[in-house]
Amino acid sequence: MYTINEIQSLISIEIEKEIALINRNEPKNLYAPIAYSLTMGGKRVRPVMVLLACNLFSKNIEQAIPAAMAIEVFHNFTLLHDDIMDQAEMRRNSQSVYKKYNQNIAILSGDAMSILAYNYLLKYNFPEASEMMKLFSQTALEVCEGQQLDMDFENKMDVSITEYLNMIQLKTAVLLACSFKLGALAAKAPEESGNLLYTFGLNLGIAFQLQDDLLDVFADQSKFGKKIGGDIVANKKTFLLLKALELSDDQTKFQIQDWILRSEFDEKEKINEIKNIYKNLNVKTITEDCINKYYQTAIQICDQIDLPGETKTELIDLAQMIMNRDH
Amino acid sequence: MYTINEIQSLISIEIEKEIALINRNEPKNLYAPIAYSLTMGGKRVRPVMVLLACNLFSKNIEQAIPAAMAIEVFHNFTLLHDDIMDQAEMRRNSQSVYKKYNQNIAILSGDAMSILAYNYLLKYNFPEASEMMKLFSQTALEVCEGQQLDMDFENKMDVSITEYLNMIQLKTAVLLACSFKLGALAAKAPEESGNLLYTFGLNLGIAFQLQDDLLDVFADQSKFGKKIGGDIVANKKTFLLLKALELSDDQTKFQIQDWILRSEFDEKEKINEIKNIYKNLNVKTITEDCINKYYQTAIQICDQIDLPGETKTELIDLAQMIMNRDH
Repeated sequence: MYTINEIQSLISIEIEKEIALINRNEPKNLYAPIAYSLTMGGKRVRPVMVLLACNLFSKNIEQAIPAAMAIEVFHNFTLLHDDIMDQAEMRRNSQSVYKKYNQNIAILSGDAMSILAYNYLLKYNFPEASEMMKLFSQTALEVCEGQQLDMDFENKMDVSITEYLNMIQLKTAVLLACSFKLGALAAKAPEESGNLLYTFGLNLGIAFQLQDDLLDVFADQSKFGKKIGGDIVANKKTFLLLKALELSDDQTKFQIQDWILRSEFDEKEKINEIKNIYKNLNVKTITEDCINKYYQTAIQICDQIDLPGETKTELIDLAQMIMNRDH
Repeated sequence: MYTINEIQSLISIEIEKEIALINRNEPKNLYAPIAYSLTMGGKRVRPVMVLLACNLFSKNIEQAIPAAMAIEVFHNFTLLHDDIMDQAEMRRNSQSVYKKYNQNIAILSGDAMSILAYNYLLKYNFPEASEMMKLFSQTALEVCEGQQLDMDFENKMDVSITEYLNMIQLKTAVLLACSFKLGALAAKAPEESGNLLYTFGLNLGIAFQLQDDLLDVFADQSKFGKKIGGDIVANKKTFLLLKALELSDDQTKFQIQDWILRSEFDEKEKINEIKNIYKNLNVKTITEDCINKYYQTAIQICDQIDLPGETKTELIDLAQMIMNRDH
């Protein structure tokens, strides 16, 4: 088995190669923003998942590289269009694509990235290619559905926890699930193992997104890349806020809704007050328990995959790495 | 052979069925705009091309319906995103999607349409599916390139006729070419015939776009859907404008550039003056000759397709129908 670090190096080299190729294409105003968005990269967690899943069943992880590229390009496409929709000027300490170039260029480059993602999968032979593309296409549509639900929730006061979990499953978790399963498909792994990896990724993805909600409020600012409390300021309907609304008495509920409705306020004050409500309602522990529930389910599913225990160590390590991030 | 009218009825029924299905999907804010954009339909020229091309080689044109849907959904996706980029509030006498809903919904619904287009092609069995998807994906990317070049040309003064023809080939013609070839692939037609149909579509597509440029200036307003002279007002670098710049003496060139640079002007006056320049330089006839050259090339290629002449009558009729439009 390759280690996670080895896989990270390997995929980084491949992505750099692709960026160089893309940068050579014309017209520049279409392809340079695509290359730029791929250089912003981050940890490239999703392509690592593809390669690692492949490696569970095969020594030849090269065969999973096109699938890993498809996932990475698709993921960055969603970030690119999300940044337009959220009017987010920064992404990982750099200007977002629409800010660096302009909105029209960002729309069109994103469109091209979505097409490029399919092109990577078209490098496979059939019948695997068929299964991989069906899974990918279904997942891509679900990600759009999740993004729309997330936008819908902005104007909806009565979002239930169930609706919220469905939204993050679609917006975030299915892509992680798909990444793992694509790796298995690339390795021609047994169908059951591929499906278990999908469910593993789904649970890990939900745990990951809930953790994201939690870190927004309770992370250590020195280790956290973004500003603490961003979701609170923006009235984001996170698991924490929805849980607080569910658990609070009428007076506290009114207090929360009052903060949500205020158009002018002191950001620090709002963050502190909402954080206090969370503390009083024990929302932090409840969220941690919920994260843990999904995480443990993922680990149990991992146990069921028909592979020697030592082979699965890297998979568990990756899951832990994702969850212990303070970024 | 089915007649064009019969094929138009058939594909309209299929599109209506799909619209009904799409309208049942959730979230509504993602799928209703997709259904809406498909109802705006127009003549559905591209899916008709797919079915007609299939019908040249096979009685069973049903087998080309998913490919026809893929093309129609993809084409409407490009219109949807183009309308955001151009801030075009109207499309075929209805509100454009971004105007009726909002920009974020339009971006995301468009993204989903691009994915849906692939889903239709994924209904085919392999190996045809592989060839169809490769052709479609390549074409989709070229359409993005063409759209970017078109946007680039807005800020570029020295666009050559060659560059312009390359742009309209990518932005418009390759999708017509792809439509014809997809129909041939769906019918498992001989490879050479599919390639000839592709080149037929390419030449027809260029003729079609040049005709579009011509009609913008010289159409009969009573039969023309849009306002005459829209391209002139917007300083669009059409074939006519580029040809006029190429042929004009320094004084006329200065006159044209002066009109382009004026930020305030009387629209009617600008249209009349530019139209006069076109008349003096014989630009109308030159454009007509160029259209005719591409159209005749298309017809010659059609002659080369290894099919009985009477089978190809509907294909020629379709080409004529497209060119004789005054809308």
